[in-house]
Amino acid sequence: MTRPGITVDIVAALQERLGSGDVFVDGPDVAPFMVDWWGRAAGDALCVVLPRGTGDVAKTVALCHDHSVPIYPQGGNTSVCFGAVPPARSGGIVLSLARMDAVLDVNPRDSAMTVQAGCLLAKAQAAALEVDRLFPLSLGAEGSCQIGGNIATNAGGTGVLRYGNMRDLVLGLEVVLPDGRIWNGLRTLRKDNSGYDLKNLFIGAEGTLGIITAAALKLFPIQPNVVSALIALPEIDGAVTVGTDLGTAFPGELTALELFSASQLRLVARHIANAACPLALDSPWFLLVDIASATSCKVLSERLVDRLAGATDAGLVADAVVAANERQRAALWHIRHSVTEANKTAGMGLSHDIAVPVFAVPSFVCLAGDAIGRAFPTAEIVIVGHLGDGNLHYNVMFGHDAWARVTDQARTRLEVSRILYDLAAQHRGTFSAEHGIGALHLEEMARYKDPVELDLMRTIKRRFDPRNIMNPFRVLPSAGCDKGSHL
Amino acid sequence: MTRPGITVDIVAALQERLGSGDVFVDGPDVAPFMVDWWGRAAGDALCVVLPRGTGDVAKTVALCHDHSVPIYPQGGNTSVCFGAVPPARSGGIVLSLARMDAVLDVNPRDSAMTVQAGCLLAKAQAAALEVDRLFPLSLGAEGSCQIGGNIATNAGGTGVLRYGNMRDLVLGLEVVLPDGRIWNGLRTLRKDNSGYDLKNLFIGAEGTLGIITAAALKLFPIQPNVVSALIALPEIDGAVTVGTDLGTAFPGELTALELFSASQLRLVARHIANAACPLALDSPWFLLVDIASATSCKVLSERLVDRLAGATDAGLVADAVVAANERQRAALWHIRHSVTEANKTAGMGLSHDIAVPVFAVPSFVCLAGDAIGRAFPTAEIVIVGHLGDGNLHYNVMFGHDAWARVTDQARTRLEVSRILYDLAAQHRGTFSAEHGIGALHLEEMARYKDPVELDLMRTIKRRFDPRNIMNPFRVLPSAGCDKGSHL
Repeated sequence: MTRPGITVDIVAALQERLGSGDVFVDGPDVAPFMVDWWGRAAGDALCVVLPRGTGDVAKTVALCHDHSVPIYPQGGNTSVCFGAVPPARSGGIVLSLARMDAVLDVNPRDSAMTVQAGCLLAKAQAAALEVDRLFPLSLGAEGSCQIGGNIATNAGGTGVLRYGNMRDLVLGLEVVLPDGRIWNGLRTLRKDNSGYDLKNLFIGAEGTLGIITAAALKLFPIQPNVVSALIALPEIDGAVTVGTDLGTAFPGELTALELFSASQLRLVARHIANAACPLALDSPWFLLVDIASATSCKVLSERLVDRLAGATDAGLVADAVVAANERQRAALWHIRHSVTEANKTAGMGLSHDIAVPVFAVPSFVCLAGDAIGRAFPTAEIVIVGHLGDGNLHYNVMFGHDAWARVTDQARTRLEVSRILYDLAAQHRGTFSAEHGIGALHLEEMARYKDPVELDLMRTIKRRFDPRNIMNPFRVLPSAGCDKGSHL
Repeated sequence: MTRPGITVDIVAALQERLGSGDVFVDGPDVAPFMVDWWGRAAGDALCVVLPRGTGDVAKTVALCHDHSVPIYPQGGNTSVCFGAVPPARSGGIVLSLARMDAVLDVNPRDSAMTVQAGCLLAKAQAAALEVDRLFPLSLGAEGSCQIGGNIATNAGGTGVLRYGNMRDLVLGLEVVLPDGRIWNGLRTLRKDNSGYDLKNLFIGAEGTLGIITAAALKLFPIQPNVVSALIALPEIDGAVTVGTDLGTAFPGELTALELFSASQLRLVARHIANAACPLALDSPWFLLVDIASATSCKVLSERLVDRLAGATDAGLVADAVVAANERQRAALWHIRHSVTEANKTAGMGLSHDIAVPVFAVPSFVCLAGDAIGRAFPTAEIVIVGHLGDGNLHYNVMFGHDAWARVTDQARTRLEVSRILYDLAAQHRGTFSAEHGIGALHLEEMARYKDPVELDLMRTIKRRFDPRNIMNPFRVLPSAGCDKGSHL
């Protein structure tokens, strides 16, 4: 158990076991691991360990377990929920997977690849492409996030509609458990009904139940032809109708269904070069769709144009443009990929990652718009979302100056999020669709999660990690601050 | 805790709490619940409870929990692993979900439906079709198995290649926990990263961690056009090559890839009416493929014929027939659906439900054929499998007379399965791909599962069900009979 004064020995013991080249105590080697990429959360740790293999991870964890030293696992450090950096005065260590970045195996005849946890997402995507296969996870941070972090946070992104979340793309895992044992579940089987599903416990647990060290991932055949379109719509309800209709007309071929408010496209046009919207911004809603198939682009485009013509006649669509070539297609996606930067430039965006059932999106948007408008009449509502997943990134934007004049910023943040999360809960939705909990959403966990559910989660945590050393005080709020039965 | 003599009170207490019309003690109302559909496993119970709703289930479980009375949950009683009937002298109760068979909600705008656990699979499929959607789970027992049982056993079947196992089709669950509390996780969200994934713990746990009472399920758009073909192949290695090639040529469109040995098709032709193979049976292997798409059957057929012509030129395919109409297509699938009945008629088939990585199927088939041939030269090897999942139903067939002459049948069963399961393990495969464990495979769990994995599973079981009342002594073998480190 923890004893004051033993901490120095931990660093020395780690250096002795792993080699001093793998354990860093201070200086520029250490600083980047202590602060998140936004620069909003900073902490400290006794040292940063950079293991070279699963055995090193196991040795590190076993030692920390023996001395009850907290471990903060870190992948690409791209968490938006402060899940990857230690807190202040953590008294623990950061364990970075950055050196374990190998692609171990790629097998198109097995539609599978096996990678170490520190492998960058972009590197995994590229390794799949080399054998003419697709690894379909795709998100903004793909150049710097790591597969292990993607799994630990069950990452989402733009490919979920067709290929699922990261959870759906994992065939097997290798995990170092909180006592230093290694669970070797690194299999590529499509079917295995021999006992409980352990894999999914670690996926999305944000490193609180163990450290993922390697993963076997699903690969898919490449859909060689892709057609994209941008569609302007007069009503959010019609956006759901058009999305549902496209899903029916292009079964298994509709691979992206991204939603923008007009306010979002205006910000992108204003702040990002070469990202003007090719349609007039006088409609309130826009959809960016991808249709991917083995069918020729010509046939796909014809079918898509037919469908959109029908939807226009029905008054559901105001205007639409189908990309005529790869350059136009890239231009449409450039708009989508510019959203984060545009919003950052535009002002202070209080962002929320909610999801509701797809059919409930119009109701949520309508009620949320009313409530935010009443409470914060000068704020602008800026929405970008994955409509096919019912997942909205709902931003309440204040100009930089206006935000500077807000006297109690923390309270304003809370008031905004309370409105949105309460409404999401009323629609049987969630306050965290794809970004996870980290250290940011512990209060929401206590407020919105069913007490039975929280109790089951705590039961698992206590049994898997009785010393509470694995990314402690993340994901699960302390008992005693839970919601009552009034919600 | 359990006290001898209290058992009579349990039945009375259940009758008092639920009403005597819901609790059956003996007679013809009870008998069918005590024996499995094969008639191979029979047991007994204090009573059969047929709850009318989740509240009834919770009351029943709470009472049994208070008195440590074992509960054997039963769905459609179609388990092939003796997982759904009580053992002899069980001292427990059977809890059947048969009366809880309602379709609660079907929402095409949410691509989701919600059903009670006792809903027949066929009824759920039909409810989806009514709103022009597909619920893609498909298996032989679909007319009598229940959704709750499908989830508890993570059912597979013929649609896994395209749509995944039952696990992949579940959006949310309602579960009565072993202490009688209700976990309401009945959500239809596509994304929800707020804490641990509890859902997947209950899926595939075969009722040992709680009783699933309702489920929210994914629906899919219907692929309107389907083309089927039967393909004769000279080599098993070529079957994997052709399957992989078809997957690449028809991305997202290849929905079935079923494998037969020639011996299997011979048995079907011999014993089943109108199920003769349209191709000569002088090739050793056959594939039945479905290609489903929004593209016209004409175009799909042309693309398929082109691909098969290429494979024939390459020597991979000996012969092939593409169904020219729906009647021919049904005739091909009639062959597939007749396999179980044909094998039952033909003799004593020792059947095995193994899976290996897809690329390892040829190696497994080759080595298994050699080993079985050496050990049992008079037995016939009959294989039907889901090649796209690496899942083979590997039957070692003895004629009825020959089997009657086997002096130690139990030993022969064990010798055959040991050969096959050891080989599956050597190929990083599993002894139970889609049928589960039940009471049948406890020895294999002890022999083949990693000790760390077994330990984690037992940890979960002990914490969720400390009194061991939920389907006790199924899935997990007793500690003490595990494998050593020699495997």
